[in-house]
Amino acid sequence: MEHYKIGLVPGPVSIPKEFRQAWNNDYGSSDIEDEFFALYHENQKLIQKILHTDNDIVINLGEGMLALWAAIKCTLLPGDKMLAVSSGLFGEGFADMAMSIGAEAEVCAFPYDSLPEPQKVRDHIMKFKPKIVTAVHCETPSGTLTNCLAEIGNAAREVGALFVVDFVSSAGGAPLDVDECKIDIGLLGSQKVLSITPSLAISSISPRAWEVIERVNYAGYDSYKGWRNVPENKYMPYTHDWHSMKALNLSLESLTREGLDESFKRHEDAAKLCRDMGKDMGLKLFPKSESFCSPTVTTFYIPEQYSWHEFDTKLREHGLVVGGNYGSLAGHTFRIGHMGSQAYVELVREGMNIIREVLQHS
Amino acid sequence: MEHYKIGLVPGPVSIPKEFRQAWNNDYGSSDIEDEFFALYHENQKLIQKILHTDNDIVINLGEGMLALWAAIKCTLLPGDKMLAVSSGLFGEGFADMAMSIGAEAEVCAFPYDSLPEPQKVRDHIMKFKPKIVTAVHCETPSGTLTNCLAEIGNAAREVGALFVVDFVSSAGGAPLDVDECKIDIGLLGSQKVLSITPSLAISSISPRAWEVIERVNYAGYDSYKGWRNVPENKYMPYTHDWHSMKALNLSLESLTREGLDESFKRHEDAAKLCRDMGKDMGLKLFPKSESFCSPTVTTFYIPEQYSWHEFDTKLREHGLVVGGNYGSLAGHTFRIGHMGSQAYVELVREGMNIIREVLQHS
Repeated sequence: MEHYKIGLVPGPVSIPKEFRQAWNNDYGSSDIEDEFFALYHENQKLIQKILHTDNDIVINLGEGMLALWAAIKCTLLPGDKMLAVSSGLFGEGFADMAMSIGAEAEVCAFPYDSLPEPQKVRDHIMKFKPKIVTAVHCETPSGTLTNCLAEIGNAAREVGALFVVDFVSSAGGAPLDVDECKIDIGLLGSQKVLSITPSLAISSISPRAWEVIERVNYAGYDSYKGWRNVPENKYMPYTHDWHSMKALNLSLESLTREGLDESFKRHEDAAKLCRDMGKDMGLKLFPKSESFCSPTVTTFYIPEQYSWHEFDTKLREHGLVVGGNYGSLAGHTFRIGHMGSQAYVELVREGMNIIREVLQHS
Repeated sequence: MEHYKIGLVPGPVSIPKEFRQAWNNDYGSSDIEDEFFALYHENQKLIQKILHTDNDIVINLGEGMLALWAAIKCTLLPGDKMLAVSSGLFGEGFADMAMSIGAEAEVCAFPYDSLPEPQKVRDHIMKFKPKIVTAVHCETPSGTLTNCLAEIGNAAREVGALFVVDFVSSAGGAPLDVDECKIDIGLLGSQKVLSITPSLAISSISPRAWEVIERVNYAGYDSYKGWRNVPENKYMPYTHDWHSMKALNLSLESLTREGLDESFKRHEDAAKLCRDMGKDMGLKLFPKSESFCSPTVTTFYIPEQYSWHEFDTKLREHGLVVGGNYGSLAGHTFRIGHMGSQAYVELVREGMNIIREVLQHS
């Protein structure tokens, strides 16, 4: 399906027309124009506010995975120790990425339907003494939101480790304080809460992280090298995308105008309605406890009478598209993405009503 | 300057409204929709025609440098030998990239204002017996177009090397036959002749290149891993950008409708007018011989009476923006980009008339 009548996929989400209007203009060269570097700087400032951080912001041209790879490759050398705190697919993925470059990675693993437990994580950090600790704020496949980033950040800092956090699908839609949680590298994508094209990968980078990055001196497309002080240097390692950067600006301005607290409430309201309606029609939440659930995405078990393919087909016949799942969660669970442009109770109600209708006629 | 009255920068070029209309739509998720994979496949076919190749086509989300890094990192291991045929900044850049991953790189170097000489390149290949030979079709900073890709390709094949060619700023605007030149990995960006946003990096990959890529098994954002058989597998390592892919389709369709020979003629006409008018007003071409000049970009020396900053400022006062230069060419030379949407004699004449006016009043 090229266009969705009711789209509730957990990213890439529907892109509002007001953000797509960035492409109405024909821009000059982002390589050389002061106006582009001013826009880059303005976006840095707006992102800092949304993330509650004074850390530097790097905005790269590529999908969110670009930021994840950059964080790993720019900080780890072969033999270095990394601890991946994991209660899901993306948490584990960090360990695979680290091992692919020859780092020594351990996983502090929790079940996919649960959250990391701070004391166990702390003990693992104290024992393993890693150079890098990674965590995932919202595990999009599981539909869970980690609630102990600050504890992990404190423990990481105690052993001198950098704390790397993937908040690709939560930032802007769920409370997050990068500085309070001592997050040295924070990772964000543009096609989730920010509701634009998947073309930008955003990283917040602390001064201590920059020190490590400069020491490691990794070169590649997925490198932060050359991205420090972009607005001051007016130089970037490759041509940036002015249009995406303008769309990001429209999105950040919109979020700022709405207010972060309002956005969090809008996401929580949409998520609660989703869970309440789901439970009411007999759907079973994948997370073990409702308190583990993310305000940006809800993961339910697929109703027993359906295969994923049959269920998806039925919903699509009624104009609704939701998300399937990946890895060990594929085939058993499905996801409602209520983030950014899709975090509205009216839209979620419309979608959940279709699910109810399909279930009643099955 | 945010918008150019007359833009003749050698990429990113002006994006026609007809391509930007791709962003008028709100698409579904590129991760899961058959229509996206069909579009990806259609673009692969159109690119194959434009490049004259049966080789596989990979379309990544990122700037053209992503393709350059991918070609190097996916084929070379530390200690492997690479020969960079170079008559310019990008040619040399390949060697730096290879050395950054611990490969043994040699440069077969020619002056920036000249072209590689096939016999010397052949001798170097025969003696060094590299695993990879790289070359650059159009050296955008120099404004030159290499004319011996077939000879280099033959020599590379003779020693069993892969032949990697950067045709980022030439393909579609200058004759190029990937299969005849035995190009194993060919590299293309979207913001040059194709005249869309800089968000796509395109690679043509031969079966022998895929063999090496699979053996090297490099992991990273800048990896081809997971990008073989995308339309068949309906799976990609990250979320793609449906909008950019649609814009690419509109551009490729437009180029196909125009016809390649027509496009080459349009580029050559614009380039010839640029050179003729330039010489007529006393500008000196940077390439040693006019026969070295690229049909997509012309590099002149900056008139003696001006610094680059003064000259650029004067031209901008008249509404014209051209390109400066990089590395050792910075400050001495400037560039007229007549590629894709800017390869029209009327536009080039308008721009060159402004340069003439500025020179007359200096």
